[in-house]
Amino acid sequence: MNTLPHLYRHSLALLTDLYQLTMANAYWKEGLAEREAAFHLIFRRCPFGGEYAIACGLSYAADFIENFRFDEGDVAYLASLCGVGNRPLFEPAFLDYLRDFRIRCEIDAVPEGTAVFAHEPLVRVVGPLLECQLLETPLLNMINFQTLIATKAARVCRAAEGEPVLEFGLRRSQGIDGGVSASRAAYIGGCAATSNVLAGKLFDIPVKGTHAHSWVMAFDEEQEAFDTYARAMPHNSLFLVDTYDTLSGVRRAVQAGRLLREAGHEMLGIRLDSGDLAALSIEARKILDEGGFPDASIVASGDLDEYEILEAKRRGARIDTWGVGTRLATAWEQPALGGVYKLAAIKQDSQWRHRVKLSDSPIKVSDPGILQVRRYANRGRFVGDAIYDEAMGISEQPTLAALTGDQKIKLPAADSQEDLLAPIFRDGERNYETPSAKAARERTSQQLAALDESVTRLADPQPYVVGLEQDLHDLKAKLMREAREKA
Amino acid sequence: MNTLPHLYRHSLALLTDLYQLTMANAYWKEGLAEREAAFHLIFRRCPFGGEYAIACGLSYAADFIENFRFDEGDVAYLASLCGVGNRPLFEPAFLDYLRDFRIRCEIDAVPEGTAVFAHEPLVRVVGPLLECQLLETPLLNMINFQTLIATKAARVCRAAEGEPVLEFGLRRSQGIDGGVSASRAAYIGGCAATSNVLAGKLFDIPVKGTHAHSWVMAFDEEQEAFDTYARAMPHNSLFLVDTYDTLSGVRRAVQAGRLLREAGHEMLGIRLDSGDLAALSIEARKILDEGGFPDASIVASGDLDEYEILEAKRRGARIDTWGVGTRLATAWEQPALGGVYKLAAIKQDSQWRHRVKLSDSPIKVSDPGILQVRRYANRGRFVGDAIYDEAMGISEQPTLAALTGDQKIKLPAADSQEDLLAPIFRDGERNYETPSAKAARERTSQQLAALDESVTRLADPQPYVVGLEQDLHDLKAKLMREAREKA
Repeated sequence: MNTLPHLYRHSLALLTDLYQLTMANAYWKEGLAEREAAFHLIFRRCPFGGEYAIACGLSYAADFIENFRFDEGDVAYLASLCGVGNRPLFEPAFLDYLRDFRIRCEIDAVPEGTAVFAHEPLVRVVGPLLECQLLETPLLNMINFQTLIATKAARVCRAAEGEPVLEFGLRRSQGIDGGVSASRAAYIGGCAATSNVLAGKLFDIPVKGTHAHSWVMAFDEEQEAFDTYARAMPHNSLFLVDTYDTLSGVRRAVQAGRLLREAGHEMLGIRLDSGDLAALSIEARKILDEGGFPDASIVASGDLDEYEILEAKRRGARIDTWGVGTRLATAWEQPALGGVYKLAAIKQDSQWRHRVKLSDSPIKVSDPGILQVRRYANRGRFVGDAIYDEAMGISEQPTLAALTGDQKIKLPAADSQEDLLAPIFRDGERNYETPSAKAARERTSQQLAALDESVTRLADPQPYVVGLEQDLHDLKAKLMREAREKA
Repeated sequence: MNTLPHLYRHSLALLTDLYQLTMANAYWKEGLAEREAAFHLIFRRCPFGGEYAIACGLSYAADFIENFRFDEGDVAYLASLCGVGNRPLFEPAFLDYLRDFRIRCEIDAVPEGTAVFAHEPLVRVVGPLLECQLLETPLLNMINFQTLIATKAARVCRAAEGEPVLEFGLRRSQGIDGGVSASRAAYIGGCAATSNVLAGKLFDIPVKGTHAHSWVMAFDEEQEAFDTYARAMPHNSLFLVDTYDTLSGVRRAVQAGRLLREAGHEMLGIRLDSGDLAALSIEARKILDEGGFPDASIVASGDLDEYEILEAKRRGARIDTWGVGTRLATAWEQPALGGVYKLAAIKQDSQWRHRVKLSDSPIKVSDPGILQVRRYANRGRFVGDAIYDEAMGISEQPTLAALTGDQKIKLPAADSQEDLLAPIFRDGERNYETPSAKAARERTSQQLAALDESVTRLADPQPYVVGLEQDLHDLKAKLMREAREKA
C-alpha cells in the first residue's frame, strides 16, 4: 500500500533542509550533478541504552521517493527566495531543471522489522550526487523516528512478557503524523493495537477503545454511567473505574457486568488509569473474581513505559493488558534517534573513491564504501554481522575488525548467511512492494526471537557481534591517516 | 491561511482515539448527543521547569475543525470494525448520522503567541456533548505539541539574548508534520528562521541554509570545495568548516572569501558544527578578523539548547547565530506537554451543572464551569490572571484563591484588564482569521516583554500570579466534597 499519498495532499519535495537545495544548485552549476556517489543512512548508538534497534520507516520513505516531484508551486516558492543583497538564491535554469526532476538512484534498504545495530546502513543510496543529496533530510526524518518508536515498542512489549500492549499516544504525540507514524511503528515493534483510528484505517492496524472519564462525568452517578454504556455498547464494554474512587468504580463495573450478562452479553473488563496500579489491580482482581467475572480483563494505563511495567510486575500486579501512551509515542526518555546520512564514496574517472568524514570522536568517523551487511546465523539464531564493501567483497570465512580501533573480532560458527540490504529502487522504478504493517510486525517478532536474550534484555544488555570486514577496515584506516595528514 | 488542507489530502476526522467514537455512538444511542457540555483544554504544569508557556497550534486546530467531515472511506472503515463476538462495533444508523456530521460548537481560544500559565484554559468548547467529545484528541494533539515547541523556542531565544536562532530540526523530528509544525511553532516562539523549506513555503517563514559536510567530501580538497561553492552560490556563501580540522577550515574559508571579494561579493561567514564551540569560535573570530573579514558571521550548531547556549556565552563564545535542531524540534528534555481536555459542566433541564474530576493529586482536580481568563496589567506589564466562570462573572476588584488549597491570592494593582479567550467558532462558522506565523511571533515577543523577568528567566524562575475567582473556588470546593462523599 502506498501510504504517504493517502495522507498528504502536498508535493513533499520541499520536505528538506534548504542547504540540500542550495548544494543541488551548486552541483548542477558546476557540472557535478551527475557524478555518481554513495550515501548511507546509519545510527551510531542504539537508543534507550539498549543493544539493538528495529528498522522502521522504509514504507514511508519508498512512497516519498516514488512520488518525488517539484510542482509549480514548489518551483515558484524557490524562485521567490533571496540570498545576500536580495538577489535570487536559485538560478532560473536550475529551477527549470527541477521541474522535470525524478529520482533515478539505486536504493537498497533493510526491510522494516529487521533487528539492526549501530553503524549498520539501514538505507544505501547510489546514484547522481545531486539526487542522493536531495534524499538526505526526508530519509532521516522518516527512518530516524519510526526506527526509534519501533525499538521503544519492542522494549515495552518485552517488559509486558507477551501480554498485549495497546498504544494510546496520539493526544501527546508530536504532530499529526508524529502520531500516525508512531502508531504504525509501535505496532511493527510489537504492540497489539492502537487507539489511533486514522492509523488503523491507513495501515490496517487493530484499534481499541471504550470510554473516557468524560463519559462518567456526563452522568450524575458513576453507576448510571456504566449501566448506560453497557446498554449502548454491549459488545465493547470495558469500564474506566477511576473517575472518583477506583475500587468503588470496580464494584460498580461488576454491577454493570451483571446487567450485561442478564442481557446475554459479557463485559470485557475494567481499566485503571491512576494511582498505585499494581496494588489496585490486585484488589480489583479480587473484586472481579468474587463478583463472578474471573475472565474480565484488567487494563492499566497512566505514564507507563517498560520500566514501570517491570516494576508493576515485580510487585505482583494482576494486569492483563498494558495501555502505553506518551512515553511510547514520543520515546520520552530519548525522543530522537541520532541517525545520519553520510557520503561514503564518489566516482572520479570511472573509479570509486572512498570517503571518510573525520571526527575527534572515533564512533563519528564514517565507514567508506558501497556497504552491505551480511548476517550470520547458526541453527536459526543470529550470531554476528559483517559490514563489507560490495565491490571489495567478503570471503566465505571473513576476518573482521572492531568498528572502532584495530581489534580483531571473532565471528562465531554459522550455518547460514544473508545480506540485509535489499533492492528497493532500480532505474527510477520501485521494485519492492513494502510489506504490510502486520507482516513487518511478524518480522520483528521473528528477528527478536533469533537474537540472544543477552542482547535484547532490558537490564545490562550485551553487545551483539558486529565487525568491519578486514580489508574495508584497513582501507578506512588508510583513508583516516591520509585525511588527518591533509587536514 | 488555511494550512492543514494544504498539507493533508485525507479527511482527518479519524485522527482520534477510538473511544471518542464509541462514546459518540453511545451518546447518540442514549439520546445524549445534543446535551450541551463545556470542555477545556488545559495543562497542569509549565514545561521544562519553567513558569510560563507560549500558546500555539490554534491555527492547525481551527483548520481541522473547519474541515471536519467523515468521508465515505471513513464511514466504511468504521463499519468494518468489530467488538466482542465479531459483532459490528458501530450501529449503521449512527454511521449514517456521521455522514452529515459537522461541528457546531462554540469555540473560544487563546490566540497563538499568548503567554499562558498552568490551569488556564487554552481552548474552551461549548456545545453538543458528542461534538465536544470528538474534538478532544485532535485538539490535544495539535495544541500540546505546538505549545511545547513554541515554549522551548522562547527559552532558547532568551538564552541567545537577541542573537538569531535558526531551527534545524527536521531530520530528527518526530514524523513529517512533527517537523513541519515544529518549524512553525519554533518560529512563533521566537526563532529567526528554519532550514525546513516546506514549512517556509506553507507558513511564510524565512528559510536558511548553505552546505553540508557532504559538499566538502565530494571534493578531493576542502579548499576546492569552498572555492567551488563560492563561485556557484556567491550570494549565499557560509562555509561549514569542521569536516576535517575546524581551524584549518576557517583559514580556507578566508581564502574562499577573498576569491569572492575579488569577484565583487562578500562571504556571509562560517559555521562550526562540532568540538568546543566556545573555544573554536574565539579562535575563528581572530582568524576571520585578521583575514579581513570582521563582518563575517560565526554560526554554531551541534546538540545546542538553551543550557548549552548559556554555557557557551559564559565562556566568552564569539558566536553570532545559533543553529538549534534536535533538542528544540523534539523538546528533548520533555518531549510532551501533559495537556488534558476535561468536561467542566453539562446542562440538565436547561441548567448548567458544574463538574469536577477527583484525583488524589490536588493539581489534577479539574476546575468546573464555563471558564474565561482575565489578565490584569499595570503600565503595560502583566501583573496577574484570574480564572473565572463566565456565568458567575467576576467583580471589578475580584477576590482570588490559590489554584489548589484555600489560600487567598493578592492581585497586584492594575490599570487595565483583558479576557484571553476569544471567539473562534460560532454557529458552526469560523469567525476568526488565525494570524500569520509572523504576527503570532510578534505577539510572543510582546507578551514576553510584558512579563516580569523573574517569571521568564531560565534560572530559578518565579511563579506568575494566577488565581481562581473566589466564588468559583468555593463552588469547586463544594463539588469536591460532594464527589468525595458519593465516591
